[in-house]
Amino acid sequence: VNPDLASERLTASFSVEELTARLDGGAEHTRMRRAIVGAIESDPVFSRENQYFQSQNERYEAAVRRAVYLQKKMREMGWTENGPEVKCIYRWLSGDIALLLHRIFMRSISVLGSEKQVAKWIPLATDYQIIGSYAQTELGHGTYLQGLETTAIFDIATQEFILNTPKISAMKWWPGDMGRSATHTVVFAQLYVHGKCYGVHPFIVQIRSLQDHLPCPGVTVGDIGPKMNFEHVDNGYLMLQNVRIPRENMLSKFCEVQPDGTYVRWGSQKINYFTMTAVRISILSEEVILPLMKACTIAVRYSAVRRQSKLKPFSGEQEAKILDYQTQQQKLLPQLAAAYAFHFINIYLHELFNSGYQEIQGRNFDSLPELHAFSSGFKAMVTQYCTSGVEICLRACGGHGYSLLSGLPSLYTKVLASCIYEGENTVLFLQTARFLIKCFKAASAGQPIPPSVTYLSSTKPRECPAKDKLDFLNPDIYMKAYEQTAIRLLSSSAAKLQHLILSGVEKHEAWNQCTVQLAKAAKAHCHYLTVKNFVATVEKLDNKAGIQKIMKHLCDLFALHGIFSNAGDFLYDGYLSGAQMDLVTASYLDLLAVIRKDAVPLVDAFDFTDKSLNSALGAYDGQVYQRLYEWAQKSPSNLQVSPAYAKYLKPLLQNTLSKL
Amino acid sequence: VNPDLASERLTASFSVEELTARLDGGAEHTRMRRAIVGAIESDPVFSRENQYFQSQNERYEAAVRRAVYLQKKMREMGWTENGPEVKCIYRWLSGDIALLLHRIFMRSISVLGSEKQVAKWIPLATDYQIIGSYAQTELGHGTYLQGLETTAIFDIATQEFILNTPKISAMKWWPGDMGRSATHTVVFAQLYVHGKCYGVHPFIVQIRSLQDHLPCPGVTVGDIGPKMNFEHVDNGYLMLQNVRIPRENMLSKFCEVQPDGTYVRWGSQKINYFTMTAVRISILSEEVILPLMKACTIAVRYSAVRRQSKLKPFSGEQEAKILDYQTQQQKLLPQLAAAYAFHFINIYLHELFNSGYQEIQGRNFDSLPELHAFSSGFKAMVTQYCTSGVEICLRACGGHGYSLLSGLPSLYTKVLASCIYEGENTVLFLQTARFLIKCFKAASAGQPIPPSVTYLSSTKPRECPAKDKLDFLNPDIYMKAYEQTAIRLLSSSAAKLQHLILSGVEKHEAWNQCTVQLAKAAKAHCHYLTVKNFVATVEKLDNKAGIQKIMKHLCDLFALHGIFSNAGDFLYDGYLSGAQMDLVTASYLDLLAVIRKDAVPLVDAFDFTDKSLNSALGAYDGQVYQRLYEWAQKSPSNLQVSPAYAKYLKPLLQNTLSKL
Repeated sequence: VNPDLASERLTASFSVEELTARLDGGAEHTRMRRAIVGAIESDPVFSRENQYFQSQNERYEAAVRRAVYLQKKMREMGWTENGPEVKCIYRWLSGDIALLLHRIFMRSISVLGSEKQVAKWIPLATDYQIIGSYAQTELGHGTYLQGLETTAIFDIATQEFILNTPKISAMKWWPGDMGRSATHTVVFAQLYVHGKCYGVHPFIVQIRSLQDHLPCPGVTVGDIGPKMNFEHVDNGYLMLQNVRIPRENMLSKFCEVQPDGTYVRWGSQKINYFTMTAVRISILSEEVILPLMKACTIAVRYSAVRRQSKLKPFSGEQEAKILDYQTQQQKLLPQLAAAYAFHFINIYLHELFNSGYQEIQGRNFDSLPELHAFSSGFKAMVTQYCTSGVEICLRACGGHGYSLLSGLPSLYTKVLASCIYEGENTVLFLQTARFLIKCFKAASAGQPIPPSVTYLSSTKPRECPAKDKLDFLNPDIYMKAYEQTAIRLLSSSAAKLQHLILSGVEKHEAWNQCTVQLAKAAKAHCHYLTVKNFVATVEKLDNKAGIQKIMKHLCDLFALHGIFSNAGDFLYDGYLSGAQMDLVTASYLDLLAVIRKDAVPLVDAFDFTDKSLNSALGAYDGQVYQRLYEWAQKSPSNLQVSPAYAKYLKPLLQNTLSKL
Repeated sequence: VNPDLASERLTASFSVEELTARLDGGAEHTRMRRAIVGAIESDPVFSRENQYFQSQNERYEAAVRRAVYLQKKMREMGWTENGPEVKCIYRWLSGDIALLLHRIFMRSISVLGSEKQVAKWIPLATDYQIIGSYAQTELGHGTYLQGLETTAIFDIATQEFILNTPKISAMKWWPGDMGRSATHTVVFAQLYVHGKCYGVHPFIVQIRSLQDHLPCPGVTVGDIGPKMNFEHVDNGYLMLQNVRIPRENMLSKFCEVQPDGTYVRWGSQKINYFTMTAVRISILSEEVILPLMKACTIAVRYSAVRRQSKLKPFSGEQEAKILDYQTQQQKLLPQLAAAYAFHFINIYLHELFNSGYQEIQGRNFDSLPELHAFSSGFKAMVTQYCTSGVEICLRACGGHGYSLLSGLPSLYTKVLASCIYEGENTVLFLQTARFLIKCFKAASAGQPIPPSVTYLSSTKPRECPAKDKLDFLNPDIYMKAYEQTAIRLLSSSAAKLQHLILSGVEKHEAWNQCTVQLAKAAKAHCHYLTVKNFVATVEKLDNKAGIQKIMKHLCDLFALHGIFSNAGDFLYDGYLSGAQMDLVTASYLDLLAVIRKDAVPLVDAFDFTDKSLNSALGAYDGQVYQRLYEWAQKSPSNLQVSPAYAKYLKPLLQNTLSKL
């Protein structure tokens, strides 16, 4: 181990092992996870060694191989689909495997299919005897599902649906596993019976032959080409021309077209939102927060090894570790604090979701609006924050961060996608805002509102009572500041909205004119709840071995960094004065120096193996230069002499020798 | 042309052609540029058609081919290296060509070489009879040049320098054209004579055989592997083991080691800074501002074609263009305003640089500190802003922006690099801050200071006089606000610094503890000057055909967006009140709606050809879905059946048919 990194580990103010166990939910779970990671990493099929050098085709092939092999391995090891092991495996894989949409295909059938449909399709899919995809998004429509243009017309004579892509913008675009793998897919299309449109419904459609894998008649299918990341996924396009499927292929747990063309619906449409809610919450941990934790690990370890310039000029001392520069601390440590904050809010969201799920199973749908607002707003806030955090880590590693071998570029390009998929973030913030405006109105009218938003009806104190920089390490002080800011941003948006409507602007236009401020208010709400939850989490930690103490520092840093970075929102109405903002800044900068001492142990506690980080800069031993050099030598650009030399350079160079 | 885009062009409030000519510096120049672009685009060697599908090796080969071919073409066309045509060519190429470091190699020899050295090496390099690179950065050292570890020891017995890479962190890393192309390079190394170190000096070293292109004895050289972008560039590594070069190979215009080992120096060391200053300014236009202009063009055109959801729900009307949503306007239009702001500040910087250059040729070095501070701070501000702007454009295009075919990912990954190369941005901001602190102290002491910073000595008005939202469209009002904020941020940093030193903290440590605030102050200074320059530019424009009017809107937007986004800095000391911030917000949001009407003509005026944008989303005709589909079909993932099917999927699927 590089002595610069070893020395960072000698002075930890807490037990790294204990913190890891807490993050894992217990030492038992840590042991299990490590055993599974060991089993995966010792298997060459899962090696990522050459990942950064592979083409799209090679990545895809390796990912399919893994998916098929994993199923076999799981059977051998006795790991089940819903067991705790699978979570560990997917955490380790970080999505670097094919046929993930096949799982969504199965989930759709399980949730939306009739018993008969489940009995027919799920066993086939479970054994990969068919390979499924999920064809919702179209070239011309993403988040706005009502606008989908694919049609499914019921033909009473043949008892079939006829599926069509009426124009190019209706072509299915982006579905994973569809470009090259899938034999079947769930197509979302506008249902027409006797010329009447019944809205979007899901249909199982076979798209490729089971004999030779060629597209079925009437089907045009392919890969949408290169993307910023996800090279291993065959995101596809799909065009349907008079493709006929039997009546039984419309997923019919909640609605059905009967043989005579009668359309019947059972149950609530709302349950569809619940699926989306579930997906939004489920992606946060592995697809969004994990990349930020990895980026922090890489950047913090590298910054403890990288030396650059002298803090004290002209002195004989060694160049300084870049982690000792205040500007570097200010880049990395708030991201580290955020990674912890989001880890804890993610636990909270899962708990909220699970208790909501219990209620829904008891046919009580009351919590749905709040859950939907939560999942939307937090998905937007966490993805946005994590994307920006990973980018900061990347840039903070200078030129080496820009090399794919650092691991940071692929973390960035991956997490960036999360801002877009499963609902575009601005749209999501506005859905949360719509919920908050409703609650705000209800609270003003004295009506009951969900627990998470009761603060909206709290009375406004005139100003913050803090007098000293230490006051800002008091959670009550900063939580109140966040609360007041969130209330103020929402109430002023609500006032503007009402004012516009009263002055004769049409409702939808008034809404549009307020959206910049509404989105901001929704974000402030989520930010406040994240701080509040971090504070509550710290309170619940016992202080054994100093874990509570260091978590308290991180919580303070997360909160004060938010105030420092959004100072205008807190200063606007004088809740904080300029002098108090100076105290915030002073406390914030002090905290950087305090947390810096534990920075390496804090990332060690995330417990990533070197193979899972796959970074020349971030390995546990800190041998960054050696590793960069070793890895670079394996690059295909070094394994063959480029034809460019013989073709273009040699003719120019061959007579030079005589002139030198 | 898509009618949605055509309609946007019917209502332009100004002549697009006239604005283009202004941006180009005259209609004459526009004609010349278009002729050259035509000549380049009609030549298949320069085609970018398959760029997004190519591997690193293919990109490199194509780039070398272009470089060699371009030289031939320039001779045929009579275009000279310093003529106006070359600027147009490189603007069109956007760096997508090899042997650019060869040009830096030549520039180094021209600037730092003796007459004899210039006479020997420049003709060879001009004809590509040798291929050069520029080996400065090492694995362990980037921005801090004094720390370079490569050694060059003078051997008096043989009249040679012996070059060595004493440890792995001293390996040269990143130099372009070195990984696979270069035969020679300028190596920066610590010069030792008789055991005494004379600091870093440049040496010409041959690294590959001119006969077979294999590494010379003692040389280890190769490619550093994949990066986020610049796949076409062979960034390299270089290790030297007792490589001997003749005494004459040390570049010796300013210093020399004489045969007896005497070290002689002529001229000023400062001139080296001037080269860096020149490079920093020269990259801004093509490598940084151009990508932002392209990203705006793509995102604005796409947003006028893309329709999503209905502004008015349940109405029979068509879905709305996403450009009509306030949130979309708030994403894109400030970036468009910034692109214009930076175009104008870039012109200003070039003028300042040229007049400084005149003075320096007359041996007057007085302007050097100001020029250095300017080039550092503006490089940092513009690269940071443009990188974030391109990312916003990318995200604002949703899923399709994430496809490489949109052109946005490669613009982003390219401009991101500019935050790191030619000096890391935080380091650069702090160099500007050091200059500003000096000036601030001088101004306080009544000493003369450079013109760009005289504002630092202006007296502080109590508060902003604005009473109405229209007041914030008065440039005097917002310029004063920027000025006051810049002064306040700098003076409070200076006060903190002094306070720390007076209370006994060591100078370098006090500086470190202020760096977060100092970097912020430097940025505010650059932001202020950019606003001021935009205002001055607008004043100078005549109002023919409404160009002045629309530029005034953009200038207002740029200024007010900056206040809106950094509200805390303006509210902090009460210079703006909360109520005035509401006026700023109102004016800012009003401007979005005004500029939205001209958004498409404003990007059309950048006059990018479709081939130079190379974007399926951004072409002039707005046929986005058609083009995405056409391009996707050409992807290599669609041209071959993946071996994954036969290897992994077929065995699973082959018996399914009987079960369905």
